[in-house]
Amino acid sequence: MNKQQLFDNIKRKGSFLCVGLDTDINKIPKFIADDEKDSIFQFNKAIIDATADLCVAYKPNLAFYESMGIEGWDALDRTVDYLRSYYPDQFIIADAKRGDIGNTSSMYAKAFFKNMNFDAVTVAPYMGEDSVVPFLGYHDKWVILLALTSNKGAYDFQFTKDAETSEKIFERVLNISQKWGTSDNMMYVVGATQAEMLSEVRKIVPEHFLLVPGVGAQGGSLQEVAKYGLNSHCGLLVNSSRQIIYASSGLDFALQARVEAHNIQQEMENILREAGLL
Amino acid sequence: MNKQQLFDNIKRKGSFLCVGLDTDINKIPKFIADDEKDSIFQFNKAIIDATADLCVAYKPNLAFYESMGIEGWDALDRTVDYLRSYYPDQFIIADAKRGDIGNTSSMYAKAFFKNMNFDAVTVAPYMGEDSVVPFLGYHDKWVILLALTSNKGAYDFQFTKDAETSEKIFERVLNISQKWGTSDNMMYVVGATQAEMLSEVRKIVPEHFLLVPGVGAQGGSLQEVAKYGLNSHCGLLVNSSRQIIYASSGLDFALQARVEAHNIQQEMENILREAGLL
Repeated sequence: MNKQQLFDNIKRKGSFLCVGLDTDINKIPKFIADDEKDSIFQFNKAIIDATADLCVAYKPNLAFYESMGIEGWDALDRTVDYLRSYYPDQFIIADAKRGDIGNTSSMYAKAFFKNMNFDAVTVAPYMGEDSVVPFLGYHDKWVILLALTSNKGAYDFQFTKDAETSEKIFERVLNISQKWGTSDNMMYVVGATQAEMLSEVRKIVPEHFLLVPGVGAQGGSLQEVAKYGLNSHCGLLVNSSRQIIYASSGLDFALQARVEAHNIQQEMENILREAGLL
Repeated sequence: MNKQQLFDNIKRKGSFLCVGLDTDINKIPKFIADDEKDSIFQFNKAIIDATADLCVAYKPNLAFYESMGIEGWDALDRTVDYLRSYYPDQFIIADAKRGDIGNTSSMYAKAFFKNMNFDAVTVAPYMGEDSVVPFLGYHDKWVILLALTSNKGAYDFQFTKDAETSEKIFERVLNISQKWGTSDNMMYVVGATQAEMLSEVRKIVPEHFLLVPGVGAQGGSLQEVAKYGLNSHCGLLVNSSRQIIYASSGLDFALQARVEAHNIQQEMENILREAGLL
């Protein structure tokens, strides 16, 4: 999917919501976990069917699938296939936070883009250019590079100030990586818990899409994120995981997931309208 | 496996060699790739049987298995099981370079330590403390944190100098992370292509084991690594992947892998003897 297609979907749906499929066998409704052989996929399928018209992206976090072993990978495969078959307008992100030396990153790129047909993969920047570039060689596929994350540990290294240039490390990531890719094949992770930093981020990358985790369960505010992060083609994908997918553990889990997603979508539609983007 | 057990294995075998199982279906001998259904596992098994008495650790890089999909994960599972069953003295490293927010890193830790029974997993430090600590809660299991990697991209961020403390980022990783773990549950990746930096690293972490990639195919020198990196309990695991596992693509691939591993082991035995550790 390219940038214009993504923006078109955002306008059509009045939404820049990404639903995080952090599907944990210990948190999904007990009646699914107990009764279904392929419970992870069945849960995802129900969540997707209940929310697909309200969001533009899905983001399975790989850790949750890896922790289930081969069964988990099978569920992930089937989830991506299901999205591709029934909701081809969805942007599918492998939240994998990979990154390794060049020939190894190439193998990860093959895994996520060629074998599994994701649109995007999150990549950690610590190993630099040759760990990121192999992901950029696929047509209409995206790297989403970690810049400023939403967790407490973000303060350990991401705010360290370069003695030479006075850039903070996350700013250095934003600056240097623009030599590697463009706003047509690269996005950045910028946590919602750092909303006030978004205006700093936008000074460096005015055109790029930002993937924003941390709204909801992690405490970030959608209004703040939009205030500092919105650009002329929206430029935001805001992720919500737990708040939506674990809205209820009862028989109504899919309906309650829809209610939560709908509330967020309505807020997003207002934001987009006020910004003159609809 | 604990630190003393690892050192005992090193002394008994006269080796601190780690064999990297970067098993690529396009690089293994054609007669295995074509003829065997479970060719990745069969290749690994042959390499392990040919080298296990000459090394103390094996390090499958997860990218190579992920790129094969479910078949790859099955091969990885079987490789770890095979090592556990027939070579229980081997230290098994999941070269995964994972790292995510706390609850997600916990899922990765479960995947590698509980489900798959690895001894250690490589972790990327960019997201800081809460992305690393969940891996440290397992008895006799290890985090191997990326500090200074062996690739060109290492220069993009790892050498950035902190304006406040004058630490380089990789030094900051070494310093801060000592609050998270000890030399009994944490090691560091320090690339052999940066051998002269090892003396700087040793000033900060004199007691820790270092996992050193980049000897051989990537150009690092074993003598240099030992000169700057050796400590009183060896403190080094030096990895070699391609040089060993792809030593030959003929029928003699396992024998030639053994020859390469034996050459390295002999050099290591001399180094250990000269250092008075044998």
